[in-house]
Amino acid sequence: MPLWNIYHPVDAYGVEDKQTMAASIVRLYPILPKFYVGVLFHEVSRENFYIGGVANDKFVRISVDHIARQFSDDEIRERWLGWVTKTLAPFTADRGLDWELHIDETPFHIWLMQGMRPPLPNSEAETKWISENRPSPYEAGANSHLSKFER
Amino acid sequence: MPLWNIYHPVDAYGVEDKQTMAASIVRLYPILPKFYVGVLFHEVSRENFYIGGVANDKFVRISVDHIARQFSDDEIRERWLGWVTKTLAPFTADRGLDWELHIDETPFHIWLMQGMRPPLPNSEAETKWISENRPSPYEAGANSHLSKFER
Amino acid sequence: MPLWNIYHPVDAYGVEDKQTMAASIVRLYPILPKFYVGVLFHEVSRENFYIGGVANDKFVRISVDHIARQFSDDEIRERWLGWVTKTLAPFTADRGLDWELHIDETPFHIWLMQGMRPPLPNSEAETKWISENRPSPYEAGANSHLSKFER
Repeated sequence: MPLWNIYHPVDAYGVEDKQTMAASIVRLYPILPKFYVGVLFHEVSRENFYIGGVANDKFVRISVDHIARQFSDDEIRERWLGWVTKTLAPFTADRGLDWELHIDETPFHIWLMQGMRPPLPNSEAETKWISENRPSPYEAGANSHLSKFER
Repeated sequence: MPLWNIYHPVDAYGVEDKQTMAASIVRLYPILPKFYVGVLFHEVSRENFYIGGVANDKFVRISVDHIARQFSDDEIRERWLGWVTKTLAPFTADRGLDWELHIDETPFHIWLMQGMRPPLPNSEAETKWISENRPSPYEAGANSHLSKFER
Repeated sequence: MPLWNIYHPVDAYGVEDKQTMAASIVRLYPILPKFYVGVLFHEVSRENFYIGGVANDKFVRISVDHIARQFSDDEIRERWLGWVTKTLAPFTADRGLDWELHIDETPFHIWLMQGMRPPLPNSEAETKWISENRPSPYEAGANSHLSKFER
């Protein structure tokens, strides 16, 4: 979590663009371990990319899954979406590319990182994962109240 | 919204097929702005496409996200799925291709179109977006009762 | 259902690896018709694959949609995730590849298999689909109590 799938026109982005973009996206999630943030770029040619039924080579379509956290507050969400727009501007609007992004929120408890279930939000284990920027085993008890958090 | 990801065998569709198919999919959503409908074609070779554990080059797998509207009525949903089947027939069953399609419904309020949050269903602003077939700024008040619509 | 999208480094898997992997994933779902299980492999080059904002060619990112069944029991889910980890080990950890997998659960009733709505879990029609390993028409009445199962 989060996983960003970015579908973009051919040659819209060079390697440096993609590196900068991926690093900017990581900064949108300051409370998460950095390695939680996955960004995949998919080049899609004009003949495979349709918006409103018309072939398009000026559109960036971004599909995101959020797993580790879900929005519970309208104001925080709106502020964060504004931040997303600002972060993406140099790679979209500023280049004359149209864009759309939508986010799904998927269940926390059916998620595996190297075979481990990631620790609960704000837990001691998560703090360790953040500071070390890698997953590590943690005591099972840390997740013993899972059922309380079930959706 | 909606976003259609169509995974299909190599050379299953020519450019004209894809244009026709994308335009047909747009017609499945007569109440939405046309530019809401995104269709991405992804060619997947036999060695990368497995159904039931067996490599397959006669299968079309379609994954759809619905964002702007959610089904609330069983009958409407069933009728609409019948329409989908009929719409896709010339590109699937009629060509001897097997197919499967599933739809997810994702949260309305974490969705951005060129940095704007799309207007509420059936709002004045949405009507404008439909008639102009492009997004445009609208007064914030139009979305002031967001919390009522939250999932 | 289920649909597995596997994003992997270039040349991480040969054709035999992919066949073995897809067959192993099918075995994770012994109660489902085999043809329900779709597995798509997507090769993603280092310059398009970012984990924590850094280009990565040692990471396998798996995104799964579950449609036919949803987890209702914590213990079953945990046991099953352990099984997933063991199943994937020969293709991930044992090869020095890092990996992450997350699963979404999508609505049963907006799912089509060759234009048919798949039969309800544990129904007579589903048993037939399992034994024949292909979809076939079944009497409408079998799904007549759909609304009871709606989410």
